[in-house]
Amino acid sequence: MPDSPARRRPNRQAAGVPALEPLVRELSEADDTLKQRVTGRQVAYAGHYLHLERVTAVMPDGAEVVRDVVVHPGAVVIAPLDEAGRLLLVTQFRLPAGGAMLELPAGTLDTHDGQVEEPVAAARRELEEETGYRAERMERLGGFWSAPGFSTEYLTLYLATGLTPAGQDRLAHDADEDLRLARVTLEDAIAATETGVIEDAKSIAGILMVARRLGR
Amino acid sequence: MPDSPARRRPNRQAAGVPALEPLVRELSEADDTLKQRVTGRQVAYAGHYLHLERVTAVMPDGAEVVRDVVVHPGAVVIAPLDEAGRLLLVTQFRLPAGGAMLELPAGTLDTHDGQVEEPVAAARRELEEETGYRAERMERLGGFWSAPGFSTEYLTLYLATGLTPAGQDRLAHDADEDLRLARVTLEDAIAATETGVIEDAKSIAGILMVARRLGR
Repeated sequence: MPDSPARRRPNRQAAGVPALEPLVRELSEADDTLKQRVTGRQVAYAGHYLHLERVTAVMPDGAEVVRDVVVHPGAVVIAPLDEAGRLLLVTQFRLPAGGAMLELPAGTLDTHDGQVEEPVAAARRELEEETGYRAERMERLGGFWSAPGFSTEYLTLYLATGLTPAGQDRLAHDADEDLRLARVTLEDAIAATETGVIEDAKSIAGILMVARRLGR
Repeated sequence: MPDSPARRRPNRQAAGVPALEPLVRELSEADDTLKQRVTGRQVAYAGHYLHLERVTAVMPDGAEVVRDVVVHPGAVVIAPLDEAGRLLLVTQFRLPAGGAMLELPAGTLDTHDGQVEEPVAAARRELEEETGYRAERMERLGGFWSAPGFSTEYLTLYLATGLTPAGQDRLAHDADEDLRLARVTLEDAIAATETGVIEDAKSIAGILMVARRLGR
């Protein structure tokens, strides 16, 4: 499994909020005092882009634990906001969920020759493939693990603005993806997170982080 | 893999927001027109509570796809809010993330004799195990898939209020979990999601959904 730029742990920042400083200190201390030291890894299943590893680790008290870990290269999620204040969302069928879902555009980081691409490159590619638009500005708003109890997937969130249609040379999306585009005002997207119309963690987190950033 | 109450698809509700009605209709239509019909499943790895299945499905155009799906019983995430307006958060070491993380209390649904427990029962149990508190009121605020591209994990979110210490007969948490409790005002928790101090999708979604509900 190659090193992924998405899995390099970003720095936690108190960012001028004094009340957060003790939390940041406690987390840094917990990195050491609660550390589980990995002593072994065994690939139990190697898939197309997912691996499942059985990881053995030693707890601070010396006890040994074995965990099933889904090893994932990382991903991006994009909040494309047009001039009219509408988000571009996509509807697609999600086999694991057994139904269609409304989500922010997103995608897995590509791996070429053992190198995982930079998240911002993936964000530009996925935005174009899934929506047909390019963005003048692609601003990193944050990032998060999707399921840190069992998966290494880390998603980086971008706010994409200055949208223009990609034109004739548009990147096509994967043949096994069947997507529909929806334009939804930020207010309606927020309402969709509150009513169960959007039931996707990365999309809920992304939409509500954009709302905070824009003071809605 | 037993049927899980957490994986029964909740109804999407326009909930009195007229602008959401076309989105709800489009999603219901997409459930059919974009449907990928499962034609085969093969367990590639059977773990303690995770399975990895290779699922074969037929797309609407007749093409066949094979997907790696992590089959998960479902989980709960709890936002425990005390009388002083503080959220109870937990710090723990997350092996897949390689570090300590600050999160809302959460946990996987238990399975006994092939039956997966109801999410609200798991929420009460996990709240007590992870924080030492019980809640008078446990209100479902929503739910979401953590990673619908590759995992069946569906999390139900609860707002827990009317908190009282569990006392001497407190349920203990698992021996291989090492947790620390933090009390953080809702405002500071929101700031923590904006600064990368909290980098966990379910916690970001949960905290910002609670903030919306409470009009912050």
